[in-house]
Amino acid sequence: MNKLENQSRSVALVDLPGTLSDVAEIEKYCTDWSGLRGGRPAIVYRPRSSLDVARIVQHHSGDLQRITIQGGLTGLAGGAVPDDGDIVISMERLDQIEEFDAIGGTVTVQAGVVLSRLAETVEAQDWYFPLDIGARGSCQIGGNIATNAGGNRVLRYGPMRDLVLGVEVVLADGRVVSMMNRVLKNNTGPDLKHLFIGTEGTFGIVTRAVLRLFPKPEVRRSALCALSSFVQVTALLKAARGRLPGLSSFEVMWDDFLRASTRELGRSMPFADDHNVYVLVEAEGSTAPQMQELFEGFFGEMIEESVVSDVIVAQSQAQSNALWEIRDGIGELLKSLSPFVSFDVGIPLRVTGEYVERVRNLLETAFPAASHLFFGHLGDGNLHIVTGPHVSEADQLRADEIVYRLVEEVGGSISAEHGIGRIKKPFLHISRSGIERELMAKLKATLDPAQVLNAGRIL
Amino acid sequence: MNKLENQSRSVALVDLPGTLSDVAEIEKYCTDWSGLRGGRPAIVYRPRSSLDVARIVQHHSGDLQRITIQGGLTGLAGGAVPDDGDIVISMERLDQIEEFDAIGGTVTVQAGVVLSRLAETVEAQDWYFPLDIGARGSCQIGGNIATNAGGNRVLRYGPMRDLVLGVEVVLADGRVVSMMNRVLKNNTGPDLKHLFIGTEGTFGIVTRAVLRLFPKPEVRRSALCALSSFVQVTALLKAARGRLPGLSSFEVMWDDFLRASTRELGRSMPFADDHNVYVLVEAEGSTAPQMQELFEGFFGEMIEESVVSDVIVAQSQAQSNALWEIRDGIGELLKSLSPFVSFDVGIPLRVTGEYVERVRNLLETAFPAASHLFFGHLGDGNLHIVTGPHVSEADQLRADEIVYRLVEEVGGSISAEHGIGRIKKPFLHISRSGIERELMAKLKATLDPAQVLNAGRIL
Repeated sequence: MNKLENQSRSVALVDLPGTLSDVAEIEKYCTDWSGLRGGRPAIVYRPRSSLDVARIVQHHSGDLQRITIQGGLTGLAGGAVPDDGDIVISMERLDQIEEFDAIGGTVTVQAGVVLSRLAETVEAQDWYFPLDIGARGSCQIGGNIATNAGGNRVLRYGPMRDLVLGVEVVLADGRVVSMMNRVLKNNTGPDLKHLFIGTEGTFGIVTRAVLRLFPKPEVRRSALCALSSFVQVTALLKAARGRLPGLSSFEVMWDDFLRASTRELGRSMPFADDHNVYVLVEAEGSTAPQMQELFEGFFGEMIEESVVSDVIVAQSQAQSNALWEIRDGIGELLKSLSPFVSFDVGIPLRVTGEYVERVRNLLETAFPAASHLFFGHLGDGNLHIVTGPHVSEADQLRADEIVYRLVEEVGGSISAEHGIGRIKKPFLHISRSGIERELMAKLKATLDPAQVLNAGRIL
Repeated sequence: MNKLENQSRSVALVDLPGTLSDVAEIEKYCTDWSGLRGGRPAIVYRPRSSLDVARIVQHHSGDLQRITIQGGLTGLAGGAVPDDGDIVISMERLDQIEEFDAIGGTVTVQAGVVLSRLAETVEAQDWYFPLDIGARGSCQIGGNIATNAGGNRVLRYGPMRDLVLGVEVVLADGRVVSMMNRVLKNNTGPDLKHLFIGTEGTFGIVTRAVLRLFPKPEVRRSALCALSSFVQVTALLKAARGRLPGLSSFEVMWDDFLRASTRELGRSMPFADDHNVYVLVEAEGSTAPQMQELFEGFFGEMIEESVVSDVIVAQSQAQSNALWEIRDGIGELLKSLSPFVSFDVGIPLRVTGEYVERVRNLLETAFPAASHLFFGHLGDGNLHIVTGPHVSEADQLRADEIVYRLVEEVGGSISAEHGIGRIKKPFLHISRSGIERELMAKLKATLDPAQVLNAGRIL
């Protein structure tokens, strides 16, 4: 009998329907999209209410069993991967959209609601929840809150933090704290919800939330711009922020990304000439003909002002989709680069061009046979890098070191949106000083003195 | 010799130029715009750097002297008013605009920089810092951060919290923690800056900050709408958010406010007919003729759809200013209502119409001789109420009770933007539960165990 079986049997369970302990049944709760293989949990609870969650936490508070909280398991930093013998709380049955306020534009949901279901539900009622990430069909609102998810429209709507008005949280001591604020401005002392947003479940378990909605845009317009250098990209971004109404995405792709993605899609390059860098621009707004004029006129001006070298303005939804397929081609590309190392760094815009050149040179020198792709939500300073294939762990670590050493040098962030979880924990010191990590540890000790909630993540 | 003099003399001072202890010199550090009269501080320090502030805090950490932090003294909740014998740290000499990044659109400032000076400096370089509040000519960035200031353009840009990328803070133990992040997205563990935004200096002293800038709008367009009921206001807000590009302000004024303000200005009412409620709408954008068409067209549609009964679209900057004078007339109006009681509550939009009617009826019944004015940044759910004159303290308390009891009933917030400070402290329980207040107290004990920083505020 191994240690794991001992642990499993020592746990006196809370009597909750849907609880799983069979080895085959809990198999799918052992890993997430990062591919990190965790241990086997002792038990998987699937509560249906905040009070259920509170009962589980209270029940296990005596046995000091570590608790792993799971949403849609789409994380890329290993944050939801359990250790051997963990109590897992899966939020999948906390899936109620509880209340929709069509006047104030808010929606109240349980944490396990899947993002795409929420988006479709409110859009059917002419409202709009703008968070949009690749994992939309599986990820859950609770996970979006825990990781402060970003995605394609942060430029216009901010990250998840800006979309959350209120939360309900189960604390490590099993008490429920309900802060279901519905107003945009609430300055009544410390805004405690920020303790639970982006903290990856280490300070408390988010079980419900009130979210902000926006009027649904009537239309979304896209254009793909070709530019001669990164200096032009910064000029285009400033001009678009100031002069392009409804600017919602600004996705930058370097030449090597565009070549790889179009090849993967079996297409030719979209422009006849070669260019250094490309930007996919999206603006949301009304169908008013003036908006279309403004959109097309803006790119005309950018060509006249020599900011943009060439442009394709989508004239239909189908053309727009075809442009976005190039950006979304990264999904397929990853397979061909596997085993790859991917990065999600935040870089100050003014040094991004230089940063990319330096990292590319170092990666090409170190790994001449591999591919290195650069792209990102540059409107938010968020650069993605994918490099691969890298078979050995030593090579993967070398890639980490190349990318992160320069992040440190330019004062960037090692994770713009994916979080720290388990995978980036060894590199946290690059983005956070000793005194910051000490403050984080003090907060953890204050909110979860027994260190049971998502233990071993971040710090 | 009184107790105060004893205390003053017992303090061994840090040797810093500009330190004041003369009774006449420190007189102006005893109160703020709320009018609350505090005690007399033992000493007023005027440091020029984070290290100066750290030295002061370290020096006094042994004597447990309470420290009051002061910005521009424009607060309306008494948060910067010292007690007798306090150490005051005034940020007025921390007034350097240190670095302006014209590519990334960020600016690095010391906490004592006055808001209007910052705004003018960046606008001269074609960038824009959108925070705009009545106290702009005196308030300081550090105070804007400490109170999470709101103002006229929260609808488009969010409150101060959304404009702060990084902060540098002196902790209660005298250590400096520098979190001068420059990127929009940084998900590397708990976002510690939120501990110091909106917490009114009780968790640490903000000494420097990195702020987000936006491209400067070429033009600002205004229109005053007359509406028949509050239901129409919610319809106008949703339509404007969805269809009016660059919507930046949505200021609602009930009929009694408009009458009082125009009378105060010596003007006739702007519309021939009587209406229930008025909205001043502002949109920012480019000078492109299509934008003007869209702006005017929007209000035409609103009249066709019977959302708006009548509208005045400003045709010049002078006309626009004249419309804004009506909204800003509150400054003069306050004098005629003195001694008044003013409120700054957050109310869910769907119940705001009903809330206003009920509060007005209760105030009119209780105080038939007084005036009661309702207006606010309704795009953010922020309602201001001014009622007066109320000479006796009992009457003032009765007004408090009328307004706050209904705030509690509708699940609103007792302070949407001014903060709690000293003045709203007795009412905090209306907006924050026992467990929330306990969490706040735990954070305070963790970050400032000796309870010296802005002691006696909020909790």
